[in-house]
Amino acid sequence: MAKIDHISPLAPTDGFPNLPVIDGVTFAATAAGVKYQGRTDVMLAQLCAGSVIAGTFTKSSTRSAAVLDCQAKIGSDPTGPAAILVNSGNSNAFTGKNGLDAVHKITQAVSEHLDIAENRVYTSSTGVIGEPLKWDRIIAKIDDLKAGQSAGGIADAAKAIMTTDTFAKGSARSIVIDGEQIKIAGIAKGSGMIAPDMATMLVYIFTDAKIDQDHFQTLVSDCTDSTFNCITVDSDTSTSDTLIAAATGRSNATKLEIDSEHSKTFRTALHEVMLELSHLVVKDGEGATKFVEVQVTNAQTNEDARAIASSIANSPLVKTAVAGEDPNWGRVVMAVGKSGAQADRDLLSIWFGDVLVAENGWAAPSYTEEAGAAHMKNDHIVIRVDIGLGTRNCTMWTCDLTHGYITINADYRS
Amino acid sequence: MAKIDHISPLAPTDGFPNLPVIDGVTFAATAAGVKYQGRTDVMLAQLCAGSVIAGTFTKSSTRSAAVLDCQAKIGSDPTGPAAILVNSGNSNAFTGKNGLDAVHKITQAVSEHLDIAENRVYTSSTGVIGEPLKWDRIIAKIDDLKAGQSAGGIADAAKAIMTTDTFAKGSARSIVIDGEQIKIAGIAKGSGMIAPDMATMLVYIFTDAKIDQDHFQTLVSDCTDSTFNCITVDSDTSTSDTLIAAATGRSNATKLEIDSEHSKTFRTALHEVMLELSHLVVKDGEGATKFVEVQVTNAQTNEDARAIASSIANSPLVKTAVAGEDPNWGRVVMAVGKSGAQADRDLLSIWFGDVLVAENGWAAPSYTEEAGAAHMKNDHIVIRVDIGLGTRNCTMWTCDLTHGYITINADYRS
Repeated sequence: MAKIDHISPLAPTDGFPNLPVIDGVTFAATAAGVKYQGRTDVMLAQLCAGSVIAGTFTKSSTRSAAVLDCQAKIGSDPTGPAAILVNSGNSNAFTGKNGLDAVHKITQAVSEHLDIAENRVYTSSTGVIGEPLKWDRIIAKIDDLKAGQSAGGIADAAKAIMTTDTFAKGSARSIVIDGEQIKIAGIAKGSGMIAPDMATMLVYIFTDAKIDQDHFQTLVSDCTDSTFNCITVDSDTSTSDTLIAAATGRSNATKLEIDSEHSKTFRTALHEVMLELSHLVVKDGEGATKFVEVQVTNAQTNEDARAIASSIANSPLVKTAVAGEDPNWGRVVMAVGKSGAQADRDLLSIWFGDVLVAENGWAAPSYTEEAGAAHMKNDHIVIRVDIGLGTRNCTMWTCDLTHGYITINADYRS
Repeated sequence: MAKIDHISPLAPTDGFPNLPVIDGVTFAATAAGVKYQGRTDVMLAQLCAGSVIAGTFTKSSTRSAAVLDCQAKIGSDPTGPAAILVNSGNSNAFTGKNGLDAVHKITQAVSEHLDIAENRVYTSSTGVIGEPLKWDRIIAKIDDLKAGQSAGGIADAAKAIMTTDTFAKGSARSIVIDGEQIKIAGIAKGSGMIAPDMATMLVYIFTDAKIDQDHFQTLVSDCTDSTFNCITVDSDTSTSDTLIAAATGRSNATKLEIDSEHSKTFRTALHEVMLELSHLVVKDGEGATKFVEVQVTNAQTNEDARAIASSIANSPLVKTAVAGEDPNWGRVVMAVGKSGAQADRDLLSIWFGDVLVAENGWAAPSYTEEAGAAHMKNDHIVIRVDIGLGTRNCTMWTCDLTHGYITINADYRS
């Protein structure tokens, strides 16, 4: 993809957050020259014995070798230590039998060098599709990655997994249970080929919580539905999208039991981390200049609410209107109409921010173009559509469609 | 939308075709000032008594008042004469109760001035959504349109219905049955907010064939499925899309009976006209510089074949790659994967034109980047994907996604 020479205008102004150390996890990053020279492109996270691993993955029927391998390993015996190795520069997707061979070479080497069972070694690859992964370059760096492990290395790890990202993405929360702290820290990368139907892109979340694997998996899957599965940059779905979450169990807090109040508190914090990371991915969407929140309320079914939100959030005409700061509510009506969901033109109400734009099948009497245009000047645009047919809601997040997207994707091989 | 100051590079080099006169139809166009001054924006086609009318329309749940009115009138008693009035500049969509009022004002006025039953007066409107249609300006011109009727006026009609179109679109065929000629002539307009799920955009087809209404409707609906329902510019579906076909019965050829050889001959010619018009719409897609044919072969079901073709044809990453003349077959694999259809990565074969790009889950041994890149330099790009799971095929047509699309849609109110 394009060499990025600017930072997204929607990037956090205070840079990468100061993520807490999670007891039981260490990180290292290095420059292996997978594709480019002179940038870090491999990270290795090492997890203490007993860490439980949960994950959500792309549903693409052409998913990558690493995704297939990870899916097979989720839920494996957590007695021993574990590791996660990620490279950028090459996605190792659609590389035929060579793809799985490359994954095995890497997981085998990590297993041997770090004395970790191979079914506890997870890998991800992101970058160009269809070119053989130079696994030998990665293997040659494993000893360096082992020697460089550091409890505070998560920021370097976040940088090593970037592709067209213009900034590294991190988020953290902590909760206190009976006086004992549980910490959660996560990192993610974007930022094109992103659409809701999975744990989008690459996301790694670490916590010191004590929790059973199946319980952890349930929480991670639930939170994915309303976070990473509710964002879209361009409606295109990657072949490599992966979210892996690891819980080391090193917190002194009591074990999180299913349906307990403590579990709910933990879930809230986990959801906040995942939501923040998913928003950061949108804010670094290719060419993005606006962050767009699409709120659909009172649809007949959950599926309808999601279909309408998705139709609006993926509409090129809505997204170019946002880019042009044009309060073009007619295109929102169009997107509702094409969604295939139940909708009655004369029951729709549409807001831009707090401005009621349309109701009863037409422009609202109180609406002025000036008021609509004023909202569109913001960095954070809210498009709300009330369907008026039921009680089901869905919120999705996207960005605008700009010349920057075309430049990045028309001019370079991703 | 944007004022267009160039003609699509994909426009036919020989301009608007010399369409034949269809006995029983006359046309006139005028400048009513619906939105812009100094350009023709209303056309009226007058049809002789006995003309049968068929139509296919948008499936949008927010379809316009004119569409609802036309749908109610298709199949009405064909004994008397009929008329079709079309305006550009305003779509009269999402205009509340005023929308249907405006349609009735216009159809009533046409009915009175031309002495045609109101249920035989069809209207369409195209242009901005959500603004009241100035129907009085249209009504004020009906006498002029009546006086100006001309058998050779179809080219002026094709111009009057244009919005962001950069060229007028027409197509014709004729067949001979037992020594007697049947002629077909059609016009269409595009060129944004276009996705397959209907008779896309505005299309008017005229023939002098003798044919029953229900037989004619069946042929028109069948042909729509593999022509206008197989094109996409931007995956967005208009609220006003309309195809109306009229058969005057004035040909001396024998009546076309269902399942007859003559009917099949006529269907072939009708399909050719519709296919040519649908391709012209894509070639005038907003910002288009490449015409892209997506051929999906050997899918498991018809639905799968269509889902995969649609996923490729609507993928922003595929379309920007085409714009950049980048033989980026990885993005084609991605689009197959996200389609939701049955596909096996290791059975896919992909061609760009005649160049075999990928097979057996990886780049073909014979493939060279130079050969792929050479095909991408063409104006007419063919992307063929063989799924290898069944026998079902689908071909769709689209255009590339360029800076021109962003400029047109981000900078102006449509």
